Amino acid sequence: MADTSSRFRVTSDDLARFMRAALAAVGANEASSEAVTRALVKASRMGVDSHGLRLLPHYVKVLEGGRVKGAPDMVFHQRLPATGFLDAADGLGHLAGYTAMEHAVEMAGQAGLGAVAVGNSSHFGAAGCYALAAAERGYIGMAFCNSDPFVQLHDGQDAFHGTNPIAFAAPVAGAAPYLLDMATSSIPWNRVQQFGAIGRELPNQVAARADGQVSTDPREVTSLLPLGGSDFGFKGAGLGGMVEILSSTLSGMQHGFNLLPMNGSDISTPRGVGHFFLAIKPDAFIEEGDFSRGLADYLTDLRRQSAIKGSHGIMAPGDREWRCQTRRDAEGIPLDVANQAAYAHIAHRYEITPLSPLT
Amino acid sequence: MADTSSRFRVTSDDLARFMRAALAAVGANEASSEAVTRALVKASRMGVDSHGLRLLPHYVKVLEGGRVKGAPDMVFHQRLPATGFLDAADGLGHLAGYTAMEHAVEMAGQAGLGAVAVGNSSHFGAAGCYALAAAERGYIGMAFCNSDPFVQLHDGQDAFHGTNPIAFAAPVAGAAPYLLDMATSSIPWNRVQQFGAIGRELPNQVAARADGQVSTDPREVTSLLPLGGSDFGFKGAGLGGMVEILSSTLSGMQHGFNLLPMNGSDISTPRGVGHFFLAIKPDAFIEEGDFSRGLADYLTDLRRQSAIKGSHGIMAPGDREWRCQTRRDAEGIPLDVANQAAYAHIAHRYEITPLSPLT
Repeated sequence: MADTSSRFRVTSDDLARFMRAALAAVGANEASSEAVTRALVKASRMGVDSHGLRLLPHYVKVLEGGRVKGAPDMVFHQRLPATGFLDAADGLGHLAGYTAMEHAVEMAGQAGLGAVAVGNSSHFGAAGCYALAAAERGYIGMAFCNSDPFVQLHDGQDAFHGTNPIAFAAPVAGAAPYLLDMATSSIPWNRVQQFGAIGRELPNQVAARADGQVSTDPREVTSLLPLGGSDFGFKGAGLGGMVEILSSTLSGMQHGFNLLPMNGSDISTPRGVGHFFLAIKPDAFIEEGDFSRGLADYLTDLRRQSAIKGSHGIMAPGDREWRCQTRRDAEGIPLDVANQAAYAHIAHRYEITPLSPLT
Repeated sequence: MADTSSRFRVTSDDLARFMRAALAAVGANEASSEAVTRALVKASRMGVDSHGLRLLPHYVKVLEGGRVKGAPDMVFHQRLPATGFLDAADGLGHLAGYTAMEHAVEMAGQAGLGAVAVGNSSHFGAAGCYALAAAERGYIGMAFCNSDPFVQLHDGQDAFHGTNPIAFAAPVAGAAPYLLDMATSSIPWNRVQQFGAIGRELPNQVAARADGQVSTDPREVTSLLPLGGSDFGFKGAGLGGMVEILSSTLSGMQHGFNLLPMNGSDISTPRGVGHFFLAIKPDAFIEEGDFSRGLADYLTDLRRQSAIKGSHGIMAPGDREWRCQTRRDAEGIPLDVANQAAYAHIAHRYEITPLSPLT
């Protein structure tokens, strides 16, 4: 939904340079800054604009406000051969995410599986980044996170769950990973805001007004419906609950309904977000190589399927992201007018060399 | 969708007695017969009529035909501390499922996590049964299975994935487990057949005709849409793909698109179905008791939420099943006319004492 036709485009190196400088200016140490930059640049390269460069101003704000700590003393407790808990010490969720998945992968290397529950964390951007971190090392990766409430229960009146994402990535022989990264609502909350800003009607069965009834008018919408809409939303809500249980209950955090809002006015009180990461070693089940070859065969069959008329054709999860990444690596990453302004403001305020648009 | 108003009702003990006798009559050994009976009686008690007693005639048929072996030599290979592979030797999926989850729980007891990929298996009934088997022992359980194709890809024309279920169960302090057991389509295939039989229109956005376009006419429907329908079916299809990868790719089996049909005429050739089971020990992450108490708190908050007008109220995943189980344990399990006839036929053919309806 970002203005991808924007003529203001930057290289990922320039974007990364700017992010590092901005995060350092508000007290992020090198590890934290590198983790945020890695996650945001990756999301922007893949075209996940809701979870890419758009978020930098938010992180700058909450680091400055003290809600999130730029130099946290994160501690990992391995409890059993395949499991552990990472206390994120109110640091940035991106550092918590990459750190936790690295521990999960290390344990999976020995035990076949590894999982880390993370507590006392904060927003971590796109869940897919951490699943991908496992896939890039030859492991199946899964990542889950809760958030403050945006999504109704099935037949519920008010928001109860966050958009509670499920990310799943798996290595494919000779190709980019399989990547599923989905909210358990049909649309993200910021799409309601975007549609409202341009006066566009929402799709049916994705959002509701204050009395809980379905609405397509973004101006009156107060919550999202779970995936499946009015008839089958018990499935989306059940998945959202699964994500909640893994992310907050298993990390000993309060569940999302009780979280302070990410975009609330209190930017000094830590929120206590929870995450859950799982790494699976494919050759811990069958012979080495059989998995990534089998996955390549499956994807070949999948991409050969006939598409219905008028559609964009059949794509595997991740295909859209990898195509976008190739295009943006060649042509640059676009910033819409709002992001250009936000980045210019940060450049001015913290005396950082502005982004240098490609010509 | 079964005729739950049926006056023909039986106790679960009588149903189990009949199932054991029927399965023994077609060569199932005691372990196989106990596993099938446990899964089907549980599903029928919980009201999951699509995966309960209705399936017995099918299993009798394929055991007699030789497609499924009643006395398989299943072999478990533990490969790493948290992982293993179960060769189900073309036996019944229910025995494979309970056996695999038991190994997963044992490994999770030591390592914190345990997962078993199962190959050379067959239909296992309701995925939720195996997730529950873990929850009943204090573990979080997950179960996945592929099947022959019924569900389109997003924008696809033809069926490609099975209804590929995701089951998730978790122990709750002092109460029945949390239980999510969902197909990654909106409806199961047998609902299309049921609606067709009574001339009823399908809900919108759940099924399609041969050219891939959405249809609500069960007589022309040839495939199901993934959860999310025409607009957001990429989510349901992506979840179906995740289930496929865990169930078939990770077990070294062919993926569902290439499987012989469960209800095809060939009842002598093994199909090579794959499953995947994961057990998670809650206190492998945080202090013992914090998890099940936290989950109870979450469910208290969930059940307190306001429901929209005209709905049946807010329910947690599993609530419907536990209510039905309580009712059916008191009043008996109903058999509709078709199942009464099928069970009478089996009684006659294998000289088994017929079911004894409650009066």
